[in-house]
Order: sequence, then structure tokens, then C-alpha cells
Amino acid sequence: MARQVSESTIRRLSLYLHSLEELEGEGVETVSSGDLAQRGGTTAAQVRKDLSHFGSFGKRGLGYEVAELRKELREILGVGRKWQVGLVGAGRIGSALFEYGGFRRWGFEIVTVLDTDPGKVGQCWGGVEIRHADELEEAIREADVEMLILAVPASAAQEVLDRAVDVGVRGILNFAPTQLRVPPGVSLQDVNMVMELEALSFALTHDGEGG
Amino acid sequence: MARQVSESTIRRLSLYLHSLEELEGEGVETVSSGDLAQRGGTTAAQVRKDLSHFGSFGKRGLGYEVAELRKELREILGVGRKWQVGLVGAGRIGSALFEYGGFRRWGFEIVTVLDTDPGKVGQCWGGVEIRHADELEEAIREADVEMLILAVPASAAQEVLDRAVDVGVRGILNFAPTQLRVPPGVSLQDVNMVMELEALSFALTHDGEGG
Repeated sequence: MARQVSESTIRRLSLYLHSLEELEGEGVETVSSGDLAQRGGTTAAQVRKDLSHFGSFGKRGLGYEVAELRKELREILGVGRKWQVGLVGAGRIGSALFEYGGFRRWGFEIVTVLDTDPGKVGQCWGGVEIRHADELEEAIREADVEMLILAVPASAAQEVLDRAVDVGVRGILNFAPTQLRVPPGVSLQDVNMVMELEALSFALTHDGEGG
Repeated sequence: MARQVSESTIRRLSLYLHSLEELEGEGVETVSSGDLAQRGGTTAAQVRKDLSHFGSFGKRGLGYEVAELRKELREILGVGRKWQVGLVGAGRIGSALFEYGGFRRWGFEIVTVLDTDPGKVGQCWGGVEIRHADELEEAIREADVEMLILAVPASAAQEVLDRAVDVGVRGILNFAPTQLRVPPGVSLQDVNMVMELEALSFALTHDGEGG
């Protein structure tokens, strides 16, 4: 059942979780679906509907206990544990991602970095030695990598993905501007900056039509 | 009408457009909805449904003319023109975005860059001088900026957004890991790396349930 929830529901669950972490940091103990909705840019009814996929939370009129709902959402999203993440591509995007402190804070640890550039291989980034991409399979096995971030040129992405999947990687976050194929049981998330800008250009172009 | 199409439809339209550009580069003149679907990771029925929001394209049994559909999709997505884009934040993410050649190729030109770091202000990036973020309003007006990329810390993002919207910016691409508020008529796209990984962790956690 849980697998059939939409991508936008999962996105909102992440937002609720991040809001709950903030609230807990502020010392807030209970929150209404209305408050949670406002922080996530949605409606109270949507919050209740999103959560209803996973059980019964909160009490009518009393709202949700922040600590409890936070714990439940961490379990639902699978972030109540640590994930070992590999990064392929140590260029500008790759290094920006590696430096980004948010990953580790939320339980995603980049444990191996690979590149093909001889000038980069052997460098050490915060205790992680950059290995040659030829060693992808060993690196994945040795570090128990489950998710891979692809920050490689479009022309290399599918091959890297296929090799990683062959040795057990089941989640791919792709920054290469190309449409990749994954076998059943493997999840792919794409971050495509041009497509984000095209969504804006669509909105700006059609603004005012029938609105 | 066009405004009511879903975000996922717009995303697929981008994918179709990019596939058509590839096909045109390969010298292909016509394409079936099935071929287009395969390249976009969807079904032929979905391709036809997505396009039907905007008119009647292609001929039953003959498929679509690549050049014509490409032209139509560019108009639908609003990328048959150039967009002037501003970038706030010249850190790692900001510089990776600036260096990314894909934007210009697809009509999005970063015409102004702003930061608060005195070590960066005054530097020149490919002919664009980095200005102090205090000059945001002037920079937006002078360069006719319509879209803004926010690559600033979460704590600064809402203020920068509000100031930009006050001087006419209507599209925001946000990389700051925080939920921003925009007034009606302004479009916001968020790129949140942690949430992308959380979507993977959700999928990997629930893999096998009821599947």
C-alpha cells in the first residue's frame, strides 16, 4: 500500500518532517494539521490525507505530538537510520554536493567518491579518498553503498548506473541532463536544472490565461 | 486552460522537447508517440494525453513531424525566446550553476550575479561582474531579470525573494533548503537535495511491500 503513494505525497511528507524538526528545535510540543499545512504550503485536509496512508496519527482537536509524529515520519521515510551514499563525479556539482552539510545531518553519508580525472583521483575530501571510476564495483561493495549520486556527463551516466545496479545499488540520484533507464526495483530521482527553469518559463508564459 | 496542467505534465513536456531536439540532431524527421514515450519513460497514451491539452498534433498512423512538434513545444513551454536570469549566491552551488553550459543552450542566460562576500564582489565570471547583494533591486532592473536563482543560505532566502518580487521578478528557482512563500502570480520551483534522497530512502524502505 505504502508504495502506491504519489511522489508529491512523499515530497510533502519530507516537508512535514523538516517542519517537525524545526518545531522540536523551538521547543514546541504539539502542532495542528493547520499549522503543519501552513509550513508545508498546503492545506490541513491534505496533511490529514497524506498521513492517513500510513495509519492514524494525532487526536481530533488536540493535533499531533511533535516528537511522536516526527519519529513516525522518520520511519515512514526510512530516514530513522543511516544511508551509505556513493558520489560519482568530483567536478563542480559533485564537490558542491559533497560540501553540503545537509546530507549528513539527515542521515545520508557520502562514503565514497569516484572520478576519472587523474588530477582528482587520490585527493582526499574530508577523509574520503577519491578513487578512479574504474573501481566503481569494488568501492560500492567495500563501502556498502545503497544509493548513488551521479554527477557525471550525460554521455557517461547510463554506463555508470548499469554497473552500479549490477553490484546492488537500488537508488540513484541523477544530475546528468539525460533520461536514464533503471530496471524494476531500482529507484531513480532526477535533478534537471533546465527542466526546473522550463517549468518556470511555462508558468510565466501562461500566467494570466484563464487564471 | 493551459495553466491547469499538472507539474508532472510540464516535466514530461520538457522531456519530449529534449528528445525531439536529440532526434532532430540525428536527422530523424517523424516520430511516433510510442518512440517519444519510450525516450521519456512513459506510455504512448500519456504522450497523446499530455499534448492534447494544447491542441491537436500529429497524424494517426503517421506520428509527429519532429521539427514541427519541437517548435510547438518550445512555444508551449515558453522557451522559444531568451530569458534573463539572475543568480544570487556565488558559492559552490552558485558557481556550479553558472558554469553549467546547459542553461544558455536552452535560452536561459545568467545576466547578473550577486553575493554578499567582499572577496567575491567585483570578480568577473565570463563577462558578468559579481555585484553586492545590496544592489539586488538595481541589478534586476538594469538587466531586465525575470527569473531568479536563489543559491543562498536558508536564513537569507525569503528576504532576497521578497525584494526581488517587489521589483518584478515572477519566477524563482530555489536551492536554499527552506520552504519559501511567494505571492500569487509568482512561480516557485524548489530543488532540495535532501528531499530527493528522502524520496529514494522511502522507495528503498518500502520496496517489496505489496509490490
